[in-house]
Amino acid sequence: MNEALSGLELRSTVTSEGQLRLELIEATIEPPGPDEIVVKVEASPLNPSDLALLLGPADIETLEAGGTEERPTLTAAIPTWGMGGMKPRLDQPMPVGNEGAGTVVQTGDDVADLLGKRVGMIGGGMYAQYRKIKARDAIVLPEGASGADGASMFVNPLTALGFVETMRSEGHTAIVHLAAASNLGQMLNRICLEDGIPLVNIVRSEAQAKLLREQGAKIVLDSSQPDYEARLSAAIEETSATIAFDPISGGRQASLILSAMERAASKTLTAHSRYGSSVFKQVYIYGALDPSPTILDRWVGFSWSLGGWLLNNFLQKAGLETAARLRQRVIDELKTTFASHYTATISLAYALKPEIVRAYQRKATGEKYLIDPSL
Amino acid sequence: MNEALSGLELRSTVTSEGQLRLELIEATIEPPGPDEIVVKVEASPLNPSDLALLLGPADIETLEAGGTEERPTLTAAIPTWGMGGMKPRLDQPMPVGNEGAGTVVQTGDDVADLLGKRVGMIGGGMYAQYRKIKARDAIVLPEGASGADGASMFVNPLTALGFVETMRSEGHTAIVHLAAASNLGQMLNRICLEDGIPLVNIVRSEAQAKLLREQGAKIVLDSSQPDYEARLSAAIEETSATIAFDPISGGRQASLILSAMERAASKTLTAHSRYGSSVFKQVYIYGALDPSPTILDRWVGFSWSLGGWLLNNFLQKAGLETAARLRQRVIDELKTTFASHYTATISLAYALKPEIVRAYQRKATGEKYLIDPSL
Repeated sequence: MNEALSGLELRSTVTSEGQLRLELIEATIEPPGPDEIVVKVEASPLNPSDLALLLGPADIETLEAGGTEERPTLTAAIPTWGMGGMKPRLDQPMPVGNEGAGTVVQTGDDVADLLGKRVGMIGGGMYAQYRKIKARDAIVLPEGASGADGASMFVNPLTALGFVETMRSEGHTAIVHLAAASNLGQMLNRICLEDGIPLVNIVRSEAQAKLLREQGAKIVLDSSQPDYEARLSAAIEETSATIAFDPISGGRQASLILSAMERAASKTLTAHSRYGSSVFKQVYIYGALDPSPTILDRWVGFSWSLGGWLLNNFLQKAGLETAARLRQRVIDELKTTFASHYTATISLAYALKPEIVRAYQRKATGEKYLIDPSL
Repeated sequence: MNEALSGLELRSTVTSEGQLRLELIEATIEPPGPDEIVVKVEASPLNPSDLALLLGPADIETLEAGGTEERPTLTAAIPTWGMGGMKPRLDQPMPVGNEGAGTVVQTGDDVADLLGKRVGMIGGGMYAQYRKIKARDAIVLPEGASGADGASMFVNPLTALGFVETMRSEGHTAIVHLAAASNLGQMLNRICLEDGIPLVNIVRSEAQAKLLREQGAKIVLDSSQPDYEARLSAAIEETSATIAFDPISGGRQASLILSAMERAASKTLTAHSRYGSSVFKQVYIYGALDPSPTILDRWVGFSWSLGGWLLNNFLQKAGLETAARLRQRVIDELKTTFASHYTATISLAYALKPEIVRAYQRKATGEKYLIDPSL
């Protein structure tokens, strides 16, 4: 017979007075229903998408610690411009943490076989010592996989695979990827190498370029180099890439890429067309590492599109069969293609320390934090 | 038996030395082949797309007249930044004038029934006293239609109808249109009124707003007014418009529209989503009245697209059957829905006068010039 459990959970609140408030609350986890399990969470990553919910548009300069060592709180001011989009969540303590992994400690009657198994989960509220969840939202990890191995088996792997699926279904044959040294970018590189898809990796430093080259990346461009634009054009011409994925959003990168694609396409034109080539060029923005304006200032003709890309929207469009196929590939290659690397593993209480928040909030490429609520 | 004809034709040349040169040449028109006709051109509009070929990126401040009264020439300097895209047309005297209308004066054996008929044509090179063309690229005008009536029966009418087709085929139900007081915009307004499609007309002055309102437009917003953004949001909410067509390109209008659409969509959300709504929002750029950068600086979630829209690409995708249906509607409603209005009718020689070039090159909304090569 299962008994109610008690455990800490992180909550993020945006108050109507314009304050962000993070805290750890003691929650009671009632016994699971017939199709549910209770998981002792061992690992949950701090993805950029989690940070958006966790911190909102709070001004990081105003972070202020409160509470006790074990039950800390953290507050920050939210600038007026940021409050517009906050209406739907005002004064509601939101659970945070999109995905995670841990060990099943209680099971409902219909899913008793999961007891003691280590699972990966998706569904929010993972920054918690215990997470009760429908069994269908958890996947049993392969033998020998740790919580850390399974913590990031949904968002990044399915996003990287989603890029490749999108490329294929929309008729492209090669990919350009920005901020390509991220965990996601490293995965995409491994997938493309495995599947023989030409990939133009764009990074912002020599260190990041080196990291990708050491992982076998064939084309890596450093956008901080003076010859970047020429090398970008050459790489796009060589690969015939006509689709790009951009987590940065702000600035002129999408514009540069579209115009390099247009130049490459124009070289195949036999006659001058004042409307540009008819080759369709696509850039998808899937993040906002730089929230400044996206600026299109180059001539790209009329056969192009710049749009948003979101995993949930992609999965919905792709359908259940495709989603199941992609998930199976993630399980099969969990410790190879889809391995994640973490800069640091921290406790729930640590995740509320101002200096730690500043560290993970920078979203530096190649850096990624993991929360272990059992610490 | 047809004899060779002789007539003036306008040519536009960009020289490798960076000069634009316009001239009228005396051309010989050999007798038509079996499926061809020779048309005495009576009317051909100066569309923005014609201006792009006619003037290229020439610096209008440097226009210099030459030649004689009857055979004038016009030269201008092309700034260095503009020469990049000119390579494919360097040193080639290009015929200009996308569409036009006139009377058939010679026919090939297979199309003898067209002799004496007044036709509308598309295919370039219409700024000429005579145009030889395949009969299939000409359409006989309805009884009583003048050359001016038939001069603009392709580009604007098919573009306006193409917007409505695109709206329907991509699952939208209402349209936002920028620079809506143009000839094209007035047509779109008439089509939408006729078909019962909600249309948000955006113009840049009270005079333009008045013009559209007098034509029965239901929603007209003046972007120069201080309450524009609030009225835009209200209009988009009222109409549920999720697609916009923008001939301006430069600046923040597309951004404003996408974010107003996102705000309207968010109001229907029951729970907060940090990724925004899943309602798909589309802005198509179909011109570049303002060639400055397009700037996206508002939060629009991830379910959106900004792309190019080009009549030729649309027609190719839509297929022959749709194209035929749209053409038939244009013929049926040539003097009502698809009537064009012209500010001035000028001769070929006048089209090369610096002060006239400056006038039509401004592309002022509501102003449009017609060339009559028979003058």
